[in-house]
Amino acid sequence: MTQEIVDPKIVALGGGHGLYATLTAMRYLSTDITAVVTVADDGGSSGRLRAELGLIPPGDLRMALAALMSAPKALEDFQTAGDPDTRRRHELWAEVLQHRFGGRGALAGHPIGNLMLAGLTEVLGDAVAALQELRSMFGIVGQVLPMSTVPLDIEADVSGLEADPRISREIRGQVAVATTPGKVRRVRLIPEEPPACESAVGAIESADLVMLGPGSWFSSVIPHVLVPEQLKALQRTAARKVLVVNLAPEPGETPGFSVERHLHVLHAHADTFRVDNVLVDASSVPAGREREHLVRAAGLFGAELNVGDVAVPGRQVHDPAKVAAVVNELCEGESNRYADRADA
Amino acid sequence: MTQEIVDPKIVALGGGHGLYATLTAMRYLSTDITAVVTVADDGGSSGRLRAELGLIPPGDLRMALAALMSAPKALEDFQTAGDPDTRRRHELWAEVLQHRFGGRGALAGHPIGNLMLAGLTEVLGDAVAALQELRSMFGIVGQVLPMSTVPLDIEADVSGLEADPRISREIRGQVAVATTPGKVRRVRLIPEEPPACESAVGAIESADLVMLGPGSWFSSVIPHVLVPEQLKALQRTAARKVLVVNLAPEPGETPGFSVERHLHVLHAHADTFRVDNVLVDASSVPAGREREHLVRAAGLFGAELNVGDVAVPGRQVHDPAKVAAVVNELCEGESNRYADRADA
Repeated sequence: MTQEIVDPKIVALGGGHGLYATLTAMRYLSTDITAVVTVADDGGSSGRLRAELGLIPPGDLRMALAALMSAPKALEDFQTAGDPDTRRRHELWAEVLQHRFGGRGALAGHPIGNLMLAGLTEVLGDAVAALQELRSMFGIVGQVLPMSTVPLDIEADVSGLEADPRISREIRGQVAVATTPGKVRRVRLIPEEPPACESAVGAIESADLVMLGPGSWFSSVIPHVLVPEQLKALQRTAARKVLVVNLAPEPGETPGFSVERHLHVLHAHADTFRVDNVLVDASSVPAGREREHLVRAAGLFGAELNVGDVAVPGRQVHDPAKVAAVVNELCEGESNRYADRADA
Repeated sequence: MTQEIVDPKIVALGGGHGLYATLTAMRYLSTDITAVVTVADDGGSSGRLRAELGLIPPGDLRMALAALMSAPKALEDFQTAGDPDTRRRHELWAEVLQHRFGGRGALAGHPIGNLMLAGLTEVLGDAVAALQELRSMFGIVGQVLPMSTVPLDIEADVSGLEADPRISREIRGQVAVATTPGKVRRVRLIPEEPPACESAVGAIESADLVMLGPGSWFSSVIPHVLVPEQLKALQRTAARKVLVVNLAPEPGETPGFSVERHLHVLHAHADTFRVDNVLVDASSVPAGREREHLVRAAGLFGAELNVGDVAVPGRQVHDPAKVAAVVNELCEGESNRYADRADA
C-alpha cells in the first residue's frame, strides 16, 4: 500500500465490538472494506439461534454489516457518493439490524438482523450467499464474511480451577471461556482446522492492508490464526498487516494481562504469524525496561512497535478517527514517528 | 375504469389466502395495486407477535407483500419492466418473507417476513411507514396497507352453543370465531369504529377498480365494511366495485353457507354498502328458483350477479388468470355476457 492508492483494499479480522470499532475507523480510509468475522459465539441471541437452528452464529456478522452502513458523520458524502436515498437507507437499516426485540417473550433480546440473516441463510442454504444478498440489497460498499463456513466452538485449557494451580482443565464454549474464574492458557477451535471461507482467503491475498484486533483476545482475535487456510493467506499476502492491541485487560478472558502478555499468547498460538506493525495506545505502554520487553514482544511478529494516541480520553475504547489517522500514517511510510523496533 | 386505461388503479380488500389469490389475479391487469388488509388475526405467528409486542398482526400484510413480488410466470417481463435483478430479488424475497423457521424452538413457525415487519414497525413506530420502507427497498410496484392503524379484535354473536338455540353468546378473537362449533350471526370490531388507514381511504377514493373477497367471510371480508371511514370511501368512490364470493363454505366460520347466505350476512353488517358486480363461480350457482334468490341477493348491493368460470377445476380455489379475465371483461363493459340483474 502506497500513497497513490486512493481506495485501498482493506481486510479487518476480528469479532464483536472490537471489529465494529476497527470497521468504523477503516471507513475513514476506504470504501473497499472486507470484514472477516469469528463465528464461535455461543451466547445471547447468537447462541439461542445456533442451538435452535444449527446455523453459523449471526451476531458478529450482523454487527459488522451495521458498521459498514453506519458512516461516521463526516464521511457521509464520501461513503455514499452523495446519494441521499442510500444514506438514509443505510442509517435506518443499521439501526433496524441492531434493534433488539424487547419484552420478556420468546423473541426478547434477538436483534432483527440476526433473525434476517438466519432466515436468509436457511433459504439460500449458505451464510456467505445470505450476506452477499443483504450487501447487494442494501447497496453496501464492502463485504462481510465469516471466518469459516461452519459454526465453530472454542475450547480452552484453563488453570487455577483446582487447588493445585498446575492442573489444567478443558472448558468448552465462548461464554464459558469468557467467564471462567481460572486462567486461560490456550484455545483451540472445534472442529480443529476448520475450513476457511474462500472469499475471505481471496480478500486477504489481494488486500493492501490487513487489520487484526482489537477484541476479546482468546475468542475473537486468536481464532483468526487458528484456521489453517486463513493463516496461510495471512503469510502469503503482500498487504501491510497491523495488529491492534486491546486498551485494557478484559475481566474473564484476559484479567491482569499486560500488552506484552497479549502479544505472547497470540504468538504462542501461531509462531509463524507475522505482522508489520503492532499498534498500542500510549497509555498502555510502560516506561524503561518494561518498554524494552514490549519492543521485543513485537519483534516476535517481526513487527515495529507503534505507540500512538488512539483511545477516547478517559474511556477504554478506541477512537475510530484516531486509529484511522495513525494507520494512515503507517501506510504512508511515516511510521517511524511512532516506531520502536527490537533491532533498532 | 374504461378500455383506454392501461394501468388501472386497483384496490383489493381482504386478508389471508383469499387476498393473496386476488392480488395475484390483479397483477394480470395492472401494476398499480393497493392491498388493504384486515388486522384482526390473533392466531399463529401473528397472534404470538401481537401478544408479545402489542403490534398490528403482521401475517396478512406479509402475505400481501409476497403476493406483489410473486409475478405470475407469464407476467415477469411486464411486471418488472424487464429488469432481471429486480425480478430475481422479488422471487427470492417473496420466498424469504414467507419462509417459516422450523424446529421446535422459540422461533418455530414464525415467517421471516413477520419478524422483519414487526421489527421495522418497532423502529419506525408505525406499521404504515414500515410497509412503505419494505416496498421501497424491494422496489415493489403497488403497496400494502392495513385496514386500520390499530390492532383489531373480532367479537362475534354465536348461537347454538347452548341447549336453547335462541340463546346467543359473545365469542372474542379471530381464532375463536373461526373455530366455534356454534353459528356465527354477527361480528363486531373491537375497538368499535376503529380509525381507518388514511392512505387506504385515499387509494379507494381514487381507484378505478375495488375488489372485495374472497376470504374468510366473517374475519377477513366483512371487517372491511365495519371501519366507518373506509365504508364511506367505498360509498364515495367512482371505482367499479366487484365482490368475489367464496367458492365453498368454510368449516367453522361459514359451515353450510350458500352463496346467497354469504351475501345476506354481508348486507346485514352494512346495508348501505353497494357494489357493481357480484362475481360467483358457475359451479356454486343453483338452477331455477334458487338462482332467482341469488339474483335478488345481489340486488341488495345494487349489483349484477355475474356468473363465470373462475375456479381451478376440481379444487375449491380461485384461478387467478380466470378471475383476471372475467374482471377485465366486466371492466370493459362486456359484463352482460355473465350478467343477471334483479331488475332485468
